[in-house]
Amino acid sequence: MALIVQKYGGTSVGDVDRIKNVARRVKETYDAGNQVVVVVSARSGVTNELIARAKALNANPDEREMDMLLAVGEQETIALTAIALHALGVPAVSRTGSQAGILTDPAHTRARITSISGGDLKKQLELGKVVILAGFQGHSADGNITTLGRGGSDLSAIAIASALNADLCQILTDVDGVYTADPRIVPDAKKLEAISYEEMLELASSGSKVMQNRAVEFAQKYNVVFEVRSSFNNNPGTIVKEEVASMEDVVVSGVALDKNQAKIVVSDLPDRPGTAAKLFEALGNGGVSVDMIVQNLGRDGKANMTFTVQRDDVYRAEKAVTASFPDEAAGKLFEVSEIAKVSVVGVGMRSHSGVAAKLFAALGQGGVNIQLVSTSEIKISVGIDPKDAEKATRMVHAAFGLGV
Amino acid sequence: MALIVQKYGGTSVGDVDRIKNVARRVKETYDAGNQVVVVVSARSGVTNELIARAKALNANPDEREMDMLLAVGEQETIALTAIALHALGVPAVSRTGSQAGILTDPAHTRARITSISGGDLKKQLELGKVVILAGFQGHSADGNITTLGRGGSDLSAIAIASALNADLCQILTDVDGVYTADPRIVPDAKKLEAISYEEMLELASSGSKVMQNRAVEFAQKYNVVFEVRSSFNNNPGTIVKEEVASMEDVVVSGVALDKNQAKIVVSDLPDRPGTAAKLFEALGNGGVSVDMIVQNLGRDGKANMTFTVQRDDVYRAEKAVTASFPDEAAGKLFEVSEIAKVSVVGVGMRSHSGVAAKLFAALGQGGVNIQLVSTSEIKISVGIDPKDAEKATRMVHAAFGLGV
Repeated sequence: MALIVQKYGGTSVGDVDRIKNVARRVKETYDAGNQVVVVVSARSGVTNELIARAKALNANPDEREMDMLLAVGEQETIALTAIALHALGVPAVSRTGSQAGILTDPAHTRARITSISGGDLKKQLELGKVVILAGFQGHSADGNITTLGRGGSDLSAIAIASALNADLCQILTDVDGVYTADPRIVPDAKKLEAISYEEMLELASSGSKVMQNRAVEFAQKYNVVFEVRSSFNNNPGTIVKEEVASMEDVVVSGVALDKNQAKIVVSDLPDRPGTAAKLFEALGNGGVSVDMIVQNLGRDGKANMTFTVQRDDVYRAEKAVTASFPDEAAGKLFEVSEIAKVSVVGVGMRSHSGVAAKLFAALGQGGVNIQLVSTSEIKISVGIDPKDAEKATRMVHAAFGLGV
Repeated sequence: MALIVQKYGGTSVGDVDRIKNVARRVKETYDAGNQVVVVVSARSGVTNELIARAKALNANPDEREMDMLLAVGEQETIALTAIALHALGVPAVSRTGSQAGILTDPAHTRARITSISGGDLKKQLELGKVVILAGFQGHSADGNITTLGRGGSDLSAIAIASALNADLCQILTDVDGVYTADPRIVPDAKKLEAISYEEMLELASSGSKVMQNRAVEFAQKYNVVFEVRSSFNNNPGTIVKEEVASMEDVVVSGVALDKNQAKIVVSDLPDRPGTAAKLFEALGNGGVSVDMIVQNLGRDGKANMTFTVQRDDVYRAEKAVTASFPDEAAGKLFEVSEIAKVSVVGVGMRSHSGVAAKLFAALGQGGVNIQLVSTSEIKISVGIDPKDAEKATRMVHAAFGLGV
């Protein structure tokens, strides 16, 4: 008998028929003799509906009340899922985040889990019950309902799997697993059997949004092995786990594409110590997350700073820069252009050289011009013209021999 | 400075615009220097939608999970109402039933309140905040969410008013108050300024469903004075309070009509002691609530028993009777016909005679045949053919001089 945590996202519980499907899958796992904890999200669309209603009342709704509001999405699904399981003869009981003792800090709408008591989950499992747990939510020490931010249900699943010392944690979603590239762009992309936490994190930050990074980071920190697989079929998924030696044999495990970046050039900045700090502090304080950064000298001893941000952040970036450099911040000093980021990711890079050269060669042969480069220990990213993005992804995928 | 509890029903918070309207009314009360606790229901329709979803999954959903499910309706409205108040600059904070310490017994879907701690409501009020409390819900000692049954938000309002020793409890609804009769049937019906708890209870049980009886009974038990008034205008409503001497001057305060009754005749029962007890015990065990009862002797020393039930209960009544009298329960022994009940209610009846005579005379003059009669200390009801129901209500209303 194993203890299995299964997490079903909003699409998987999107309507009554899909909830029935989830119940059938849970029953299979339960009937096989396992203890099962099911973590569910809100029905897809519900969270956005609730936000729309709140915004219609108040352009800037209070975050504590937003958490009170948004938590109802998951509370509805846990009850419906338990009710659906009862119809199949499976004993099941639902628990809110608060009832499961998921304690968080008081940072409403983006709370961090501080501890998990589990409430009476162990007892319910021992009584032979399937426990349906509301994802995305917890409570703060002062008794308020908190939420964990977008994608928080993944985090709930990983965290409860860790707290209960589960044998397996399955993230059931609308994709079959983690692929060497997005199959919609690269037709011969291959599903990966296993991938390390770090690779998963780099892939996510490079545009492959299978899961939120916080959930993967939590899994890495507490060494929770999990599997990403489809809730609509029974194909095996991708196991995400600690790096093992054999993983290093694969130099590149995937190619990721992020089409949603913008390149910002701030030119004619004073070329003196502290300029970069001042700029990026201003951006950080403005809530702008900066990705790739390139600095080079311009004319007359002035510096140019080039960096990329998510497109949604361009307006905030502009505000932050003009506020911190009021004199220099007119007209041409601030140039924005759309950019796409193609990244190759693999823990094997640590022990293999020549990856960058191979990447640049593939792009050069395809006539793709590279505008920016950034590297980490297990990733190389290039910023290119968005019109070349999909072609470049396919070329790089082929160059590293990742296809089926 | 007074402490005022205002309860808004599902129609009053039915959409974003109506929630804004509620927020404006609450702000008026708050700006006048009062402490305000607002009790809200789920948006109209939401509870039925949730029930429909549960029934689509399971014809007989678990009651504990139904409470988990239905409680989300009110949790959504408290958050939205607080958010709407913030937009008007009013400090407000929401509380679930559980957070307000509304403790109930564990009878899911129809829980009874056992105690109310109030949580931190007093403190929040002292901090100058409007508290928005979820109606209809509480929690049991074992930490489960419970609900109080249909109309339970009225009960929540009365109960929290009692617990906080509020100066005033207003039940804001889609009618202007309690009328001498249903204005849709009796055009010259008059709004009552004040009415006693008992009259309110008798009117409700006679078909004037302004509020559920449990809320009125709770108010009577703890002597909570409350006002029924409209949330859509500023007209004064009807005060419901303990009987005072002056109320007795009014012999009849209202005429109620219940068109939803069925008359059941069980004939040829053995005419011996215990027969009636056996019959009505069977009905009670079958969950059937019996209203008027008439017994008379039939042919050959057999007894006939005539009684009325709500039409929804006819099937259950039939099952209960045939199960308890298996031999006699064939064919003609069980006759069902639709019936309407017209009642006159008034605490003045206690000290005035001739009410029944006046009622019968009015009906006789109108050619309305009376099939059953039942009386209580402050009410006389007659069962008549449904086709005569509205005419009879108007005639009786006129005969007692209740019109404007």
